[in-house]
Amino acid sequence: MNLLLLSPDDLRADGSAVVEDRRLQHMLQVQRVEPGQQLRAGLLGGLMGQATVQQLDSHQAHLTLLLDQPPPAKLPLTLVLALPRPKMLKRTLQTIAAMGVQRLVLVNSFRVEKSFWQTPWLQEDSIREQLLLGLEQACDTVLPEVILEKRFKPFVEDRLPALAAANLKLVAHPGEHPECPRALGEQPLTLAIGPEGGWIPYEVELLRKADFAPVQLGPRILRVETAVPALIARLY
Amino acid sequence: MNLLLLSPDDLRADGSAVVEDRRLQHMLQVQRVEPGQQLRAGLLGGLMGQATVQQLDSHQAHLTLLLDQPPPAKLPLTLVLALPRPKMLKRTLQTIAAMGVQRLVLVNSFRVEKSFWQTPWLQEDSIREQLLLGLEQACDTVLPEVILEKRFKPFVEDRLPALAAANLKLVAHPGEHPECPRALGEQPLTLAIGPEGGWIPYEVELLRKADFAPVQLGPRILRVETAVPALIARLY
Repeated sequence: MNLLLLSPDDLRADGSAVVEDRRLQHMLQVQRVEPGQQLRAGLLGGLMGQATVQQLDSHQAHLTLLLDQPPPAKLPLTLVLALPRPKMLKRTLQTIAAMGVQRLVLVNSFRVEKSFWQTPWLQEDSIREQLLLGLEQACDTVLPEVILEKRFKPFVEDRLPALAAANLKLVAHPGEHPECPRALGEQPLTLAIGPEGGWIPYEVELLRKADFAPVQLGPRILRVETAVPALIARLY
Repeated sequence: MNLLLLSPDDLRADGSAVVEDRRLQHMLQVQRVEPGQQLRAGLLGGLMGQATVQQLDSHQAHLTLLLDQPPPAKLPLTLVLALPRPKMLKRTLQTIAAMGVQRLVLVNSFRVEKSFWQTPWLQEDSIREQLLLGLEQACDTVLPEVILEKRFKPFVEDRLPALAAANLKLVAHPGEHPECPRALGEQPLTLAIGPEGGWIPYEVELLRKADFAPVQLGPRILRVETAVPALIARLY
């Protein structure tokens, strides 16, 4: 937890904050915070800065806030990601929030096991919890938008074109394709990343029809949790 | 397991192979391999190609081999990595093998908890097992070299200069430093990556004296398991 992330519910009328939950436990047990100490803090969806601990015990921490800095810019990136297995999903959500992805679409694919859609980790609260951990790690206050799409074809045909609009459109896929580009800067991008085992040809064909150009990352096959940060770091 | 990785012990005098362990279980339970089927295979430290399953039961698989392709090139990269906590160490070893790092030095640092050096995951067999999983994932046959350095100062002062020699030398460190470079191509590099919480100033100073230039990756603080693939993908 490199940033104490406060929600509007934590604020009192005088602009100070009271923290009670997991974050208090972390302050006590891991950070061993003392009264008077300053912590990096931010308001969810808002500014970042310093919190000064006025008082704390095992139930509550009282903090005064000086929040005057904008959070780091988001990457102009929409990731369309075949739903990973639950264990990888958790870590991947954290990574996506930590690296500043603007929008994530979790989509079905032929090689996604049906059971993956049943995991409790896909519930709204669980997704939000993992994203918050990513923001706390990276020092950011702005949640990425997350969209679930359980049917590949209607998503790609009907909704993806409007979502990707004028963006650069790429699909990561092994084979004789151009190399994945680098250092896109401000260029908005929609990037589709397949499941373990990859997209099937029919899926790549549908993405091509939606103007997605296949690109490859070399001969090494990476796990989703490695491919995601590798692709993002190369592209931005 | 995208590559069936064979060791010289698996080979018989006629050049065929017999597989019995974890790999057999994976073939039976995950890949549901049938006699006659072809699998991507490679010989540890050697060539890759196809294995044809001649026969298999719950005890053994007999395979004939056609290995005629070189493994993918290693990156000309030595990573000097502050020892991560055991859970991260496992995943990071897999990532490092999968991405083709040539050499890894696990080094002590002020912010590495002493207990991390006691983990059974640092035993030679355990390290090797994680590296093999990475090679099987990525389709490579060549293990990275791994060196353990339990004392930072004598390593950086006495052994690192010879190890890094004519390489480009960078230390990843947040702050007002130049941006981490990109796309080094064939350029050999030694890259030092700190622990959670970062290198302390004294350590950065010692690395500077050994001609390591600090570079930064932007305002976001990434976990080691995310920073490692992100840095490698940006640099190569």
